[in-house]
Formats: sequence, C-alpha cells, structure tokens
Amino acid sequence: VAYELYYWPGLQGRGEFIRLALEDSGADYVDVARRSGKDRGMPALLRGLKNGSEPHSPFAPPYLKDGDWVLSQVANILMYLGPKIGLAPEDEGLRFIANGVQLTIADMVGEVHDSHHPIASALYYEDQKKEAKARSASFIKDRIPKFMRHFEHLVSHNPDGRGETVGASISYVDLSLFQLMEGLAYAFPRALKKFDANYPHLANLRESVRARPNIARYLASERRIPFNETGIFRHYPELDQEPG
Amino acid sequence: VAYELYYWPGLQGRGEFIRLALEDSGADYVDVARRSGKDRGMPALLRGLKNGSEPHSPFAPPYLKDGDWVLSQVANILMYLGPKIGLAPEDEGLRFIANGVQLTIADMVGEVHDSHHPIASALYYEDQKKEAKARSASFIKDRIPKFMRHFEHLVSHNPDGRGETVGASISYVDLSLFQLMEGLAYAFPRALKKFDANYPHLANLRESVRARPNIARYLASERRIPFNETGIFRHYPELDQEPG
Repeated sequence: VAYELYYWPGLQGRGEFIRLALEDSGADYVDVARRSGKDRGMPALLRGLKNGSEPHSPFAPPYLKDGDWVLSQVANILMYLGPKIGLAPEDEGLRFIANGVQLTIADMVGEVHDSHHPIASALYYEDQKKEAKARSASFIKDRIPKFMRHFEHLVSHNPDGRGETVGASISYVDLSLFQLMEGLAYAFPRALKKFDANYPHLANLRESVRARPNIARYLASERRIPFNETGIFRHYPELDQEPG
Repeated sequence: VAYELYYWPGLQGRGEFIRLALEDSGADYVDVARRSGKDRGMPALLRGLKNGSEPHSPFAPPYLKDGDWVLSQVANILMYLGPKIGLAPEDEGLRFIANGVQLTIADMVGEVHDSHHPIASALYYEDQKKEAKARSASFIKDRIPKFMRHFEHLVSHNPDGRGETVGASISYVDLSLFQLMEGLAYAFPRALKKFDANYPHLANLRESVRARPNIARYLASERRIPFNETGIFRHYPELDQEPG
C-alpha cells in the first residue's frame, strides 16, 4: 500500500522535507491534496485535521498515513519512515542522534517562518512588515551563522561519514539540510553570498544531494513546486541583507 | 550509571520537561549544572556545547548523557528515555503518536517563548515590549484555544485511555502537558481564567499528574525551581489579558 502524504497543495512548506525523502528513496506514495478523486484533494486533507475524525488526529499538516497509522510532525514522520525507506542510520543510537539534528533543523525552519511572521500567523505579512524587518536582521546576523556553524561542525566531524551528517551513509537529515540551504538561498540571497566559502562541507553536501539521480529527476519534474511567497521560505527583498 | 541531565541551573525552561519524567519514574539522574565538583557545574554544561568536544555535539541545552551517548532536543530525549523509564506506550506505533503530540507541545512552548521575545532572543524583553504585547494578544486569542482544543480532543478521545493522552497508562506526554498548563497558568493567569471549564479533561489530567506521589514530592522539594522571569514561562502582567 502506498504512503499517503497530506500537505497543502500549492507550496513546498514543511511537507517538502517528507517529499524529498519519499522521492529519493523511490517509495510508493500519494501526495493526496494534489490529486483529485475520491478521498483525494483538499477536502481529504481538511477532513483529516478535524478533531473527531481520528482519535489521534494531527494538529497541522504535514501528516502521513501508513495503513491505519496517522503520523504527524515532520521530524516524527521522518524518524518513522527513515528506517523503512533506507534513509536512516543502521545503528539505533545514531537514529536518536539523527532525530536530534532533525529537530534542530525544525527549530531553524520555525525561525525562518517567524522572520516574515514575527507577530502572528493569523496576520498578513504586510501587517507585520516593520517587525519582520527587525526579526530578519537578527536572524541574518545571529541565527543563520549560529545554526550553520553547528551543522558545518556536524558534517565535518561525523566520525562515520564522508560528507554525511550522521552515520556512514546518506539519511533524511542530509536531504533536509539540502532543503534548508535551498530555501535560505531563495529567501535570503544577499545574506548567503559567502555561504559556500564559510561552510564548505555544507556546500558539498548540498551539491551531492542535488546530484542524486532520484533527487535530480524530482527537482526537474512538475512534482517539485517552485519556491513561492506562500511557503516557509519567502523572498521579500526588503528582508534580505548582507550579514556584516 | 546515572543519567546526566545538562541544563541551565537557575530556571525550569525546557529542561523541566525532562526533569519531570526523570523524577516521576524515580530514575537515577544528576542535574549536572546544579552540582559542584569535577565535571559538574556550568563549566561542564558549557564544555558539552562547544563544537569540537563531541562529534555529535548538541546545539543547545537541554542535553542528556547516557553512557557514551549525548542526546539533544527535549522530544528526542523523552522518546529515547520513555521506554527505559516506563513512561512510554508499550506499542511501538503509539510511541510515534506520542512523539507527534510531544512535538506539538514543543511547538507551543516555542510560541510561549516568542510571546515575550518576538523579535530576537539576543535582545532583552524590554527592547521588544511593544511587539511582545501584540504577539501575546494573538497568542492568547488564537493560539492557546487552538492548541488546547486539540489537546483536550486527544485526551477525551484516546481510545485506550481513562484520562491519559496516548495509550493506556501515563506517559511523558501527560507530564509535559501538566508542565505546559502549569507554565501557562503562571504566565497568563487572566487568559486562563476559564481554562478548567473549557477543557475539563485537561484540567483532570493536570490534577492527576500533580497528585502522583513522586511528582508531589518533587514539586515540594528544592529541586523544583520556582517559575521566574528567566525561563520560558514568564509572568509579565502587561502581556496577560482575558481572551475575549
């Protein structure tokens, strides 16, 4: 039976971290809200979010159905899927290391969201633009370097790896770091100008993920939704600046 | 060998979710930064955060050492510890359900933090007070009800439980929901005035966790640091208001 991924149809958003893992592994999956027909499309996505439809209903998309199980939260879905689709470390201890890194990625993704929505998700960007400028300035100056130094350290000091973040072979964490870098480069091109020079191991990782055959095929396909200003990574030129 | 918990010594913060699980289970643990001596105290905490000291060094506290393993991120630590200390569901599928709920709790905790620090962690509250007021108003009006309706649904619809959130017996998720409610009641007493009437199952859960012998003993001990304005849950009266 195919995995069913439930996520907003018009944006990469948090769902993209799951899509990349499913695509890289060649797993059989349905991107439910982007299909039409019975039990497909937005109505199916929204039905699954209704308290009452499932005893363990998810709080928000993305969520994944695997048979009777409904899993929520990106890092949780990836920790569940990883071993089944060959994208988690073999060693069980290392799986918890990988999950810890994935949750740090999730924290950074949350901060990316808040760079354009620092006051309220319920308000438009235009209604919190001034605050978004202040938050983005701090994000670019303090937070991008802090997170990226950390990830660079992990990749360059992974005792088992030759370019991977955790363990001896590629995992969903590497795919998520690729997506994080792609998103930051889209949203903040000026802030990321010197990225490759400052974080050479991350730059290598990014290119080696991009070159993976299934990923390359996916990125060139219509299944890869372009970055846009309804997702997590938004390019608002007024929020982007050089770090110094 | 005792578990070693590494967290800032003067506040509950995110470390408290781990402390509650360790205390409830009666597990042998050391709260490293609150002790003195060799490999104890703040120097030990800071050493573990330095890139370079560990191949898989954590991004931020709390982190937990179990023998050679260093685990980071609250939800990850709890997912690792839960089965070992008898605070996770027996069923493996339900463990992923529990982890999903714990990550939703973590999302809400992040929003609590940002209610007083919407612009930058690096700035003082006083320097982002106006923005904190706007963010808190939206948090109280929209976010607390959205999260709490969800958690209330989980507890009241848990097919295996009689008051628990996931599975047939108490888990770390229940302890974390207790802490979340305690923290919200401390930070936003006016916003939470009608909490018990609106969320009766959560109110019951809160009291039944409080009454657990090891928790009651812990809460009455000096090991429980009082809530204060350096933690995640801060009582700034100017940010608190009735929801309606």
